[in-house]
Amino acid sequence: MKKGYTIGIDLGGTNTKLALVDDKGRIVTRRLISTGEYPAKEAFIEAISGCVKEILAARGIKAVRGIGIGTPGLVDSRKGIVYSLTNIPGWDRVFLKKLLERSTRLPVFVDNDVNLMALGELKFGAGIGVKNLICLTLGTGVGGGIIIDGRLYRGTTLSAGEIGHISINENGPRCNCGGRGCLERYVGNRYIVALATRKIRRGKKTIVTKLVNNDLSRITPFVLSTAARRGDELAISIWQEMGKHLGVALSGVVNLLNPEVIVIGGGVANAGKVLFDALRKTVRERAMEIPVKAVKIVRGKLGQDAGIIGAVALVKLKT
Amino acid sequence: MKKGYTIGIDLGGTNTKLALVDDKGRIVTRRLISTGEYPAKEAFIEAISGCVKEILAARGIKAVRGIGIGTPGLVDSRKGIVYSLTNIPGWDRVFLKKLLERSTRLPVFVDNDVNLMALGELKFGAGIGVKNLICLTLGTGVGGGIIIDGRLYRGTTLSAGEIGHISINENGPRCNCGGRGCLERYVGNRYIVALATRKIRRGKKTIVTKLVNNDLSRITPFVLSTAARRGDELAISIWQEMGKHLGVALSGVVNLLNPEVIVIGGGVANAGKVLFDALRKTVRERAMEIPVKAVKIVRGKLGQDAGIIGAVALVKLKT
Repeated sequence: MKKGYTIGIDLGGTNTKLALVDDKGRIVTRRLISTGEYPAKEAFIEAISGCVKEILAARGIKAVRGIGIGTPGLVDSRKGIVYSLTNIPGWDRVFLKKLLERSTRLPVFVDNDVNLMALGELKFGAGIGVKNLICLTLGTGVGGGIIIDGRLYRGTTLSAGEIGHISINENGPRCNCGGRGCLERYVGNRYIVALATRKIRRGKKTIVTKLVNNDLSRITPFVLSTAARRGDELAISIWQEMGKHLGVALSGVVNLLNPEVIVIGGGVANAGKVLFDALRKTVRERAMEIPVKAVKIVRGKLGQDAGIIGAVALVKLKT
Repeated sequence: MKKGYTIGIDLGGTNTKLALVDDKGRIVTRRLISTGEYPAKEAFIEAISGCVKEILAARGIKAVRGIGIGTPGLVDSRKGIVYSLTNIPGWDRVFLKKLLERSTRLPVFVDNDVNLMALGELKFGAGIGVKNLICLTLGTGVGGGIIIDGRLYRGTTLSAGEIGHISINENGPRCNCGGRGCLERYVGNRYIVALATRKIRRGKKTIVTKLVNNDLSRITPFVLSTAARRGDELAISIWQEMGKHLGVALSGVVNLLNPEVIVIGGGVANAGKVLFDALRKTVRERAMEIPVKAVKIVRGKLGQDAGIIGAVALVKLKT
């Protein structure tokens, strides 16, 4: 059964998820490693390697296609280099592919996690059979992955897909990236929370204050989603505003790239119906007639496992 | 010399340009037809067909690769259908490929003119050897063509590339397309002229009034370019403002698509250095570090012949 299984790894700043996955994209078994606990990159890579061996031994599997790894931030997917990783001291331009191939004796493939989410949704999720697909993740940052003619499009210097840094207001607030009025500057986690906090401080009535025991520093997008689901007007208005910002940026993407499907994933996507209704309404109102009729905007099907499944899809493509 | 020559046609609302072009993209001979003079589509198609035969006879050429045609607006490039064409009565969903193949007995290929400009610049102009290229034309409208991995990207319903309808201000003025604050709403010909007219009416000193003999209805982008070249402050400030709007939209495109080259053509591109300086400065300041270092923003090399040469490039690809 050499071709039957693959190891998928979602390498995050807080947790690293590993799984043994079959050829249909089903997770057979999974493990979790606390990324932040490792004192240095060598120990962390050894931990991953050990965990892979343990999974294979536990399942009695002698051979797998290989290991796929998705990580946030800048990755050289050709050489398998991961440039930086929060929480791991000394992580600077690490030849992850080479190091892990040496210690596991398995082929290793590395890519950016949002690219892999796009690939995962294309091969096993909301985009099966689709040729042109855009994937958007909403969280601390706003990331994007682009599938063109059924293939991952990485761009000239492997940095394509930064949907979060399309400006929706040319004179808008400064963004960390150096731009102004970038989408992320409105819908990134911290800006959603900041907007809610400002509105509450201005005296808007809301159940959010109760949900966080009057400690406004505890507001998160998750709390705001809960409040919106319970019908809280302030929370609903915030998700509607976020949906509009997203819809404006995605209208531009629809007009420019004329995709068949836009898949939205990540934590903030859990805000659910209110967010998606506002987003779809904005795109319907603003994008051009022909491309807007052709596009479906859907929530990611793979949820929390998108990174792992995408990493597996990458290995399947490469082996 | 069957493979040595191709007929390229740039079908416009006012004029239609035809040329015999060699395999290196050099124009051997050219003709001009006044599109608007023809009473109906049949007569116009016969005129094109006759002109092609005349060119071949005049040069003593027995065979060519085929005929490539670029036209504005919506084209079904697969079936060779041109949906609408200003100035020709009764032009509605015309099977241009089929009709012209019947009357010329040559293979005919049809595509949108901006797509063909992108292809022309890729094969014979500013983008030779480039894999990922964006082409932008500035005129009445703002059009775009996208080359991904060395191939024209047309999108799911063949309508990709509408860079002019990326919003740069989510609450900006309404655009004809249904959106708000679209790039075209700022840098399309009529909006440039309207801005200049407003500023002059407000009493700004400028040589533009003299250039148009005090008849402000005669202001065109061409007049504003002339004034800017002569150092007129008002005209310079207008082109700087246009460069900034373009730079904001193109920063988003750079972050999203990470292209190697952005080619800018069309009439407004003639505003020249002032426009390009402001545009490049804005992109440098706003786009992300890695993709912005990788991209060159250049003026189209093919100028007025981009449509013809692009049509020839299309035929070369298809035959």
